[in-house]
Amino acid sequence: MKIVIAPDSYKGSLSAMEAAAAIERGIKKADPSIETVLVPVADGGEGTMDTLVAATAGKKKEVRVTGPLGQEVVASYGVLGDTSMCVIEMAEASGLCLLTQEELNPLASTTFGTGQLIKQALDDGFRSFILAIGGSATNDGGAGMLQALGMKLVDKNGAEIGSGGGELSCLEVIDDTGFDRRIKESTFLIASDVENPLVGKSGASAVFGPQKGATAEMVNVLDQNLSHWADKVEELTGTRLHDLPGAGAAGGIGGAFQAFFSAQMKRGVDIVTEYAGLPQALDGADLVITGEGRVDFQTASGKTPMGVAQKAKEKDVPTVILAGSVGDGVDVLYQYGIISITSIIQQPLTLQEAMEQSSQLLEYSAEQVVRTFIHNKPTSESGVLHYET
Amino acid sequence: MKIVIAPDSYKGSLSAMEAAAAIERGIKKADPSIETVLVPVADGGEGTMDTLVAATAGKKKEVRVTGPLGQEVVASYGVLGDTSMCVIEMAEASGLCLLTQEELNPLASTTFGTGQLIKQALDDGFRSFILAIGGSATNDGGAGMLQALGMKLVDKNGAEIGSGGGELSCLEVIDDTGFDRRIKESTFLIASDVENPLVGKSGASAVFGPQKGATAEMVNVLDQNLSHWADKVEELTGTRLHDLPGAGAAGGIGGAFQAFFSAQMKRGVDIVTEYAGLPQALDGADLVITGEGRVDFQTASGKTPMGVAQKAKEKDVPTVILAGSVGDGVDVLYQYGIISITSIIQQPLTLQEAMEQSSQLLEYSAEQVVRTFIHNKPTSESGVLHYET
Repeated sequence: MKIVIAPDSYKGSLSAMEAAAAIERGIKKADPSIETVLVPVADGGEGTMDTLVAATAGKKKEVRVTGPLGQEVVASYGVLGDTSMCVIEMAEASGLCLLTQEELNPLASTTFGTGQLIKQALDDGFRSFILAIGGSATNDGGAGMLQALGMKLVDKNGAEIGSGGGELSCLEVIDDTGFDRRIKESTFLIASDVENPLVGKSGASAVFGPQKGATAEMVNVLDQNLSHWADKVEELTGTRLHDLPGAGAAGGIGGAFQAFFSAQMKRGVDIVTEYAGLPQALDGADLVITGEGRVDFQTASGKTPMGVAQKAKEKDVPTVILAGSVGDGVDVLYQYGIISITSIIQQPLTLQEAMEQSSQLLEYSAEQVVRTFIHNKPTSESGVLHYET
Repeated sequence: MKIVIAPDSYKGSLSAMEAAAAIERGIKKADPSIETVLVPVADGGEGTMDTLVAATAGKKKEVRVTGPLGQEVVASYGVLGDTSMCVIEMAEASGLCLLTQEELNPLASTTFGTGQLIKQALDDGFRSFILAIGGSATNDGGAGMLQALGMKLVDKNGAEIGSGGGELSCLEVIDDTGFDRRIKESTFLIASDVENPLVGKSGASAVFGPQKGATAEMVNVLDQNLSHWADKVEELTGTRLHDLPGAGAAGGIGGAFQAFFSAQMKRGVDIVTEYAGLPQALDGADLVITGEGRVDFQTASGKTPMGVAQKAKEKDVPTVILAGSVGDGVDVLYQYGIISITSIIQQPLTLQEAMEQSSQLLEYSAEQVVRTFIHNKPTSESGVLHYET
């Protein structure tokens, strides 16, 4: 019996690796002879870098960069174990998590620090990048990132424009003569589930601006500015970002990648599961256990447990989900080879209590579901079918 | 695939039959082709009569009797379907549930109504009795019950003594000449998990008196009176109840049954599972699902889920427990063939919310555990092993 353990983090209580360790303890209690393979995963959002580093036994490097509002922050980029690939999480340098609610200001916030992280990784010799772009505080179309990589963005007086989505209206010319030439030699996998175009009603500013602090008035300004930005990008590159699907990801940085980088956008969970080694781990497995803090009907729109189940189904391996909480409408998930979806909670308690006890609860519920799953299950070791009791 | 559904009630929210119906809905959602057999059960406590009547498609008969403090109450006794057996729940006539906290008074409360219930059933022709004696409000040694059945308990002046454990000190002579002769023709199965003797530190008064409203001073009086009562019983019958195991059950009524009835005391869950038809239902079953409101280390001391599991284990049928809440130390239950013990709760919530949603939660969790259990399980229909997927 071989079980693959591939949870996301349980937000606010357990990292993906901590969750995987708790599940493993439960499995070993159910039957110490079960072979376990730990593949912590993520869906491209917060924690993706840490999870990929943990899953591949990689490492992290700290870099001092410019934060979203110009303050210095210590950000890290990750290096996958046994590869020459690095992973950059935009939120480390330009994330909502770096600002208080009061500080949020998408007119001023910049992606400059994300560009500095890329530059440092280039200096360190990396040419293959995974970019996790969830959780950004910015709406600058990726202009700041490009500036950090040597792009000149000048106004009608020939001076460099300021930082943030509010300054893009001053842009007259994009001058790429100083743009870091190593970008052309590099490949970028962009982990993003966002299909939104750059501008308009479904664009970056209208859909994601408000959660970054934009008022209705600011949304209008930001949207016009991104449209102007896209005009200038089209003048230089011929690429029309305005309505391009995915260009609206992460305040428009999705568009910058598509115009100036050799970039491919893929669903976050697909990138993470692939580079975390899930497909190889699934070979010969009898079961996958995955989970995250909450599972509901939205899980079917590309969240980790569903991505894991899809990969498992390709190899005819059934999936069990253990969630902090289970919401309504989860039966849409059964079609992906998921055989059960249950909560780790074992008695009436508060969210706070559940989060404090999550490690023990996850261990206990993993033990129970495995005990049920393995009961009287045929195994085919040494080519002979026999029954475990 | 055949699954036996044998839950207790989920106290405060679902009767055993309602719980069984919810579990059946969940099983049918998992796989409509699964054969289900509903055997609601109980452990001899509150609800035992209703459960046995429901499990056997029996009926109930209402009788006006004297309540624990002399007030008239409408009590019922039950008749098992397809048998000449009746079931009497002591709490119906002499129970704690009939009194407010302020009314509790074991010096005064009487088992007279329980005797009246037995008398009515005798009048109706029944000679085989199951007696569920949990939840009594009395500490009278069963004296009231005996009086209702024609026993004369007289003081030194030849007058009948009053009601309740406080009056037993006045007893001079037990005169059985008028004791209902049909009792001798009848058999009584006493559902009781209590092993306590009648008197002393482990006796009825000391151990169970306080929860019936006895102060420390009252406990002393009650214990002395039961000792005096036992002296008088010994004078008449030769049976010494003082230290007899089980004589302390239900305020000493356990002793009265042993001295004056053809009675056998058995663990409640064993009587209920037998007469509810669990052994027959288990033939050819692949799984039993049981459960109740709370499961913890105490469940191993004869509560319903453990009793069900023991019966199932005799026929090599594995048991799954679905509980309202799961407490600590449940791994002691695995030795009884229980393969998993999980809560029906699916997200952080209050006890009140859990109880309001218990039917849907039980249905959902039954569906999940069955989906996990049946996955890739071999079946042996038509004598050919094949695998369900």
